[in-house]
Amino acid sequence: MDVRAAVAYGANQPLVIETVQLDGPRAGEVLVEIKATGVCHTDAYTLSGMDPEGLFPTVLGHEGAGVVVEVGPGVRSLKPGDHVIPLYTPECRECEYCLNGKTNLCQAIRETQGRGLMPDGTSRFSAQGKPLYHYMGTSTFAQYTVLPEIALAKIREDAPFDKVCYIGCGVTTGIGAVIYTAKVRPGDKVVVFGLGGIGLNVVQGARMAGADMIIGVDINPGKRALAEQFGMTHFVNPKELEGDLVPYLVSLTKGGADYSFECIGNTTLMRQALECCHKGWGTSIIIGVAGAGQEISTRPFQLVTGRNWRGSAFGGARGRTDVPKIVDWYMEGKIHIDEMITHTLPLEEINTAFDLMHEGKSIRSVLTF
Amino acid sequence: MDVRAAVAYGANQPLVIETVQLDGPRAGEVLVEIKATGVCHTDAYTLSGMDPEGLFPTVLGHEGAGVVVEVGPGVRSLKPGDHVIPLYTPECRECEYCLNGKTNLCQAIRETQGRGLMPDGTSRFSAQGKPLYHYMGTSTFAQYTVLPEIALAKIREDAPFDKVCYIGCGVTTGIGAVIYTAKVRPGDKVVVFGLGGIGLNVVQGARMAGADMIIGVDINPGKRALAEQFGMTHFVNPKELEGDLVPYLVSLTKGGADYSFECIGNTTLMRQALECCHKGWGTSIIIGVAGAGQEISTRPFQLVTGRNWRGSAFGGARGRTDVPKIVDWYMEGKIHIDEMITHTLPLEEINTAFDLMHEGKSIRSVLTF
Repeated sequence: MDVRAAVAYGANQPLVIETVQLDGPRAGEVLVEIKATGVCHTDAYTLSGMDPEGLFPTVLGHEGAGVVVEVGPGVRSLKPGDHVIPLYTPECRECEYCLNGKTNLCQAIRETQGRGLMPDGTSRFSAQGKPLYHYMGTSTFAQYTVLPEIALAKIREDAPFDKVCYIGCGVTTGIGAVIYTAKVRPGDKVVVFGLGGIGLNVVQGARMAGADMIIGVDINPGKRALAEQFGMTHFVNPKELEGDLVPYLVSLTKGGADYSFECIGNTTLMRQALECCHKGWGTSIIIGVAGAGQEISTRPFQLVTGRNWRGSAFGGARGRTDVPKIVDWYMEGKIHIDEMITHTLPLEEINTAFDLMHEGKSIRSVLTF
Repeated sequence: MDVRAAVAYGANQPLVIETVQLDGPRAGEVLVEIKATGVCHTDAYTLSGMDPEGLFPTVLGHEGAGVVVEVGPGVRSLKPGDHVIPLYTPECRECEYCLNGKTNLCQAIRETQGRGLMPDGTSRFSAQGKPLYHYMGTSTFAQYTVLPEIALAKIREDAPFDKVCYIGCGVTTGIGAVIYTAKVRPGDKVVVFGLGGIGLNVVQGARMAGADMIIGVDINPGKRALAEQFGMTHFVNPKELEGDLVPYLVSLTKGGADYSFECIGNTTLMRQALECCHKGWGTSIIIGVAGAGQEISTRPFQLVTGRNWRGSAFGGARGRTDVPKIVDWYMEGKIHIDEMITHTLPLEEINTAFDLMHEGKSIRSVLTF
């Protein structure tokens, strides 16, 4: 079928809105009409050419929401008309990773997904007869896309696509890191490095989990008001401090953070995030994606005296199990999303959405079809 | 009172066996007759002058066992005749650290202990009228020593001093890291870097916890036989490998270690220990003490994809609670100690004990009085 899509033909080139061809779903696959999709830093990272796994030409996009149009043979958990959120971290419920309860990193289709292909090793997208790569197993920058059944979370039908699409990545990544990875508990003290789209969701996750102190760290004082609205209790601007950041945070928390979260991808901040944690038990969680080849470091004494260094991908959430719950939380008013979606644009203006992100003018832009 | 002790007058100087003066126990303190003490790498580290917290002149030693001789005012949990193991990590059961259940790093006397003093800020030891510093709050290289009540574990009276003294540091550090810090479970795959005194105890801790694979990594093939006796299932000598160590270990474990332990203090090995862990959940625990100023590093991707980097001090054991249980395990034959004590010498030969350690000829030397 003919599908309108934003195609990335190469690194650092503007996306091209055009009609491409999409094959129908094969066994275990589902055709989804994408109704809305967020534009995320990870899309920009790949488009920049910095992503060592990036492949071109491709249809980017991994933060969507839509409706099932058609299911391939053997698909049992979804039917046409179901509302869904695509999952770049699938949940097969059969692999060792899914079954041991220790991780959300389902590996069922990891290898083909990393090569930009469907699980059978082929692509459903093509343009002028030549295949286009899938991206993160989702390719939501297209009006229709094909995904494996295990990469779709079924959600309630009254949830607005142009808001809950953000749960496909940023919301779940932030809230999940607090709730599923860190398991923050009432009374905990939390420090959040970076108050962008991920950091704000960490803030509201920490508020939801009952944290006592939720300290936001950002060099942009403009981030303060919205972060406070999401539950931040203290704002720290490193540029306004007289001394060093780490001892300041240790003092402010009376000994250190129970949990800290790095939401930017800066390896220097990752070290500070670890070292502001409380001796004996403080845990720092890396969410941000660092540049290729960059490394984190610290003195091992930081760990031997009880700090823990961990990371979180897709918020530790098991997509098919947890994403529908997060949609419910949004619909019940337990978490907020609307305030973070600063721009809603038609697909045709996708390059503007990238510009807004690079210029720091948006928290999240959502594209509609 | 006059006490025979090995005094360290300065960095890199041989210890001097001489008679020093020891004041009796003050409020909350206990006079202990040391019956046996191990000689540990940490004593050598401080004696070398590399320890930034090292103070001289001092009475070193932190791995002892003995008998209570006299208790100061207010001491309620111990009485003369009780058998005890000194604890360089005390357990006050009153501080925030003791009470929150997340750590064994009691901070009740940390500050004075770090300054080589008793909790009231003074020393009980002196020589020629000048005070000697206490060491790690224990100073077991003396026939008698004074400790705070909270720094003594009461143990059963049938346990041999010249064996269970090793539980005061090495045994508990190794076994505890497995049982209390990592919480290894039956079926887990474990990799142990370094098969010295700590590593062997990690091996037997992993065996006790029911690990399926217990892989020992050491460049000395002479370590193999004893490690196998303690439960090691596979031996890897990095010098005999064709390729790199990390992929070899990942392959051997079919995906990576559930837990790895660095028992040497080498920051390069600490990185390898992390990176040989299983994606999604593998946890690496640093036990070894690195040289001052040395740093560990890795790509943050290692953590974001689910590996955890942690450390363990005194095996995560709460001394007064857990050390008596470990003594029981030894007496019941659940763990072995005798085979690791390669040399038993009188206090007078303490410098020989250090030489044996430096020459790699001993696993553990124990001094008796």
